[in-house]
Amino acid sequence: MRNLAILLAAAGCVLAQSNPAATAARQWRETHERAIVQEFIDLLALPNLARDSAAIRKNADAIVALLGKRGVKTRLLETAGAPPAVYGELLTPGATRTIVFYAHYDGQPLDPKEWASPPWQPTLRDAPLDRDGRVIPLPASGKFDPEWRLYARSTGDDKAPILAIATALDALKASAVPLSSNIKLIFEGEEEGGSPHLAQILAANRDLLRGDVWLICDGPVHQSRRQQIVFGARGIVTLDITLYGPNRELHSGHYGNWAPNPAMALARLLASMKDDDGRVTIPHFYDGVEPLTDVEKRAIAEAPDVDADLRRELWLGRTEGAGKKLVELLNYPSLNIRGMSSARTGAGASNVLPSTATASIDIRLVKGILPQTAAQCVMDHIRAQGYTIVENEPDAKTRMATPKLARVEVEPGGYPALRTSMDLPVSQLVLRTAESARGPIVKLPTMGGSVPLFMIDEQLHVPTILVPIANHDNNQHSFNENIRLRNLWDGIELMAALLAM
Amino acid sequence: MRNLAILLAAAGCVLAQSNPAATAARQWRETHERAIVQEFIDLLALPNLARDSAAIRKNADAIVALLGKRGVKTRLLETAGAPPAVYGELLTPGATRTIVFYAHYDGQPLDPKEWASPPWQPTLRDAPLDRDGRVIPLPASGKFDPEWRLYARSTGDDKAPILAIATALDALKASAVPLSSNIKLIFEGEEEGGSPHLAQILAANRDLLRGDVWLICDGPVHQSRRQQIVFGARGIVTLDITLYGPNRELHSGHYGNWAPNPAMALARLLASMKDDDGRVTIPHFYDGVEPLTDVEKRAIAEAPDVDADLRRELWLGRTEGAGKKLVELLNYPSLNIRGMSSARTGAGASNVLPSTATASIDIRLVKGILPQTAAQCVMDHIRAQGYTIVENEPDAKTRMATPKLARVEVEPGGYPALRTSMDLPVSQLVLRTAESARGPIVKLPTMGGSVPLFMIDEQLHVPTILVPIANHDNNQHSFNENIRLRNLWDGIELMAALLAM
Repeated sequence: MRNLAILLAAAGCVLAQSNPAATAARQWRETHERAIVQEFIDLLALPNLARDSAAIRKNADAIVALLGKRGVKTRLLETAGAPPAVYGELLTPGATRTIVFYAHYDGQPLDPKEWASPPWQPTLRDAPLDRDGRVIPLPASGKFDPEWRLYARSTGDDKAPILAIATALDALKASAVPLSSNIKLIFEGEEEGGSPHLAQILAANRDLLRGDVWLICDGPVHQSRRQQIVFGARGIVTLDITLYGPNRELHSGHYGNWAPNPAMALARLLASMKDDDGRVTIPHFYDGVEPLTDVEKRAIAEAPDVDADLRRELWLGRTEGAGKKLVELLNYPSLNIRGMSSARTGAGASNVLPSTATASIDIRLVKGILPQTAAQCVMDHIRAQGYTIVENEPDAKTRMATPKLARVEVEPGGYPALRTSMDLPVSQLVLRTAESARGPIVKLPTMGGSVPLFMIDEQLHVPTILVPIANHDNNQHSFNENIRLRNLWDGIELMAALLAM
Repeated sequence: MRNLAILLAAAGCVLAQSNPAATAARQWRETHERAIVQEFIDLLALPNLARDSAAIRKNADAIVALLGKRGVKTRLLETAGAPPAVYGELLTPGATRTIVFYAHYDGQPLDPKEWASPPWQPTLRDAPLDRDGRVIPLPASGKFDPEWRLYARSTGDDKAPILAIATALDALKASAVPLSSNIKLIFEGEEEGGSPHLAQILAANRDLLRGDVWLICDGPVHQSRRQQIVFGARGIVTLDITLYGPNRELHSGHYGNWAPNPAMALARLLASMKDDDGRVTIPHFYDGVEPLTDVEKRAIAEAPDVDADLRRELWLGRTEGAGKKLVELLNYPSLNIRGMSSARTGAGASNVLPSTATASIDIRLVKGILPQTAAQCVMDHIRAQGYTIVENEPDAKTRMATPKLARVEVEPGGYPALRTSMDLPVSQLVLRTAESARGPIVKLPTMGGSVPLFMIDEQLHVPTILVPIANHDNNQHSFNENIRLRNLWDGIELMAALLAM
């Protein structure tokens, strides 16, 4: 895969010349790498968990300052109980088109203990950690190796586009490449929590946020390292299932065999949800999936087949899905155990019969399946296994009265999937522009991850298209998140081309 | 159950009068409660994890001092790489019988964050925590309410007998009740780790440690709060099972449906091991269980039926074992998930596809099943589910070459079960003595928990009998371990009677 990436990078290098904005961005970047990385580091050093309201606001303020320096007219869109959304605009006299760029500045929750370097202390390494990357100091001047990685929360997901847009604006100004469209920027502060207030923000600012297209600057590029443009995203709903054993941990010797073990009950319940090949066995789970169009099927067929490379990269002894390609499987809903816990394992394990066992599940949705429908399927299935479901922590009476008791909490903030037609004129314009800047493009009807495109369609009736820039191996949503500098450089060029289109 | 306990405590109060040693112990305790509790607190304040070699040695030194004050001749039995065992003796001129008292001074591993008060900062409460017990200061003088609880690691398991024996010696001396047997004390420092060096200690000190009976002062009294004497213990073997997914946590949206989820695989594997009623479905798991004798069956039938009370106490909506009583089920082997983990749940959960999933399992053994046989059964079963088993962390090549890969680590230190005949003269003597001190006794062929009785039989050919003193609801092996003062008081009387028998 590395050879392919080098080849494509070289190809992109030639083809980028055909887009003056991208060329201007490259020239600017080549002479300003130190300053660009420093500005990114300053932004990444700000802790950005949405629930930490004081910290998250500092991020918004920093982004306002960063955009203000570029002459962007900014304001904070405030909503009670939510981090502010940062809005910015650059209006072009006589423009007949308005392009809205969306990104988010909050990061996934994390456990600092799992990180090789602190999550908000951006750290440069000469290679990825899993290839023994060593920490290196920032070079005082001179070029950065594009294979170096910068490690910090939100390097890839999703502060990189914010930095790339700001840098692209510098480059366009320096090279006097004019804008021909109105540009609007909207950077959200709670996407990782499911964008609980985005619909409200959109509804309260419909005229301000309307445009001809929303470009969603989030997610990774293709695993082949080729630029991809994606016309939809899966929806999501997450739920936590807790089962109950005795009201306190018991000595496993004195009570094992008699007091029911909630971890074993949870294993049995989860096992009833999927077969050995990963197919969900919950009744009606796949009902209503909207079929792909011929254009979408062709795009999937044309996507590079990276499955064998990915299996090697991820050390996988097998894959699920009855032999289907990854890119095809993303068009089905998924059910994933994102975390599971009961008592303790490892050095802290002791001989107890646990009191509770919990699994956290995320369900990815495709067009035709609503979050509440999917959650209801799971709950109906749990009931069909003999469980009584409660929403809150059950009391003694409830626990004693119920042979099989499950607490199921469906997290608020789930949302459905969306797909924009690849045939729209604006879809074709974005594809042509990206191709002129970055060479051959991977086109996909949907990405596997979730962004709340649905809300934009519902509130503004504007098509949405995803233009990701992060490397696929950026560890987003996990510890040791990072960006490959090559992806940041390429992203600046892509953003320049899209800003100037 | 509380009414029954009060009734029985009252009954014990009357009957104890028939044993002069127990009476002496009660009189002493009633006038020295403050000093007794203070001495216990000082012993409990010493952190006592076996793996912390400096800390664990301080416990041994403290116990040597505590026994020395009572005129016991002590020494440390040293073994390379192990905490010392504390040995003590009180030889009685002309004695024809030698009684060995065993206890252990190390405690189960723990996570201090789970404790309501620090585990090595003994804390007195006016009731159990689950009945809203409040912290109370030590009374400067006067009586302690026997329903008060003292919270700290090893209050019940297993420093209480050490303190009880020392206090009983004070009482016997004060009342001039003579000893008629030789007394030997052996207090181990790594029982919670499976007594990995006990066999070696026994082999190196055969003559020193031989006697007519070993009294194992460990475990809880019966759930009816009646004194119980137990003639065996289950054996144990523990193993950790880890399954593998991708080599790093992945974004669940971009890879869910395609990369196998190790938490789901673990759920499926564990679910294959037991049925809905808790019966182990692993082939040959129950093969070779040695049947109970008629005397043992009768003892079980005569044991108080506390199951309904226990269900209420533990808030259980059902029990396993096809309607059999707890006391009967303890005579079968058990398979218990003592901990399970994969990625994170709760506030730290994020939308990942986990990289690994681990379950820690303990298997309780009965006579006729050896630890290696039980572990082999589980491993054969895992292989029968299509897994390749490795012992160590697998490398990339192994993970890629193996569609289903399990790392199984069988912990060293497992040991088989043992049952001493209830018909031996020494068994009858212990029963009569305990009954004269504590009233009607619950007699059981085995306890559910594990102590390494097997080694004592193998190395010394001495019968072993368990004489527990802790309350059953002492949270041993879990957080918030505690002792009910009534049990400590009763334990002092029992120890006095057994020392003087």
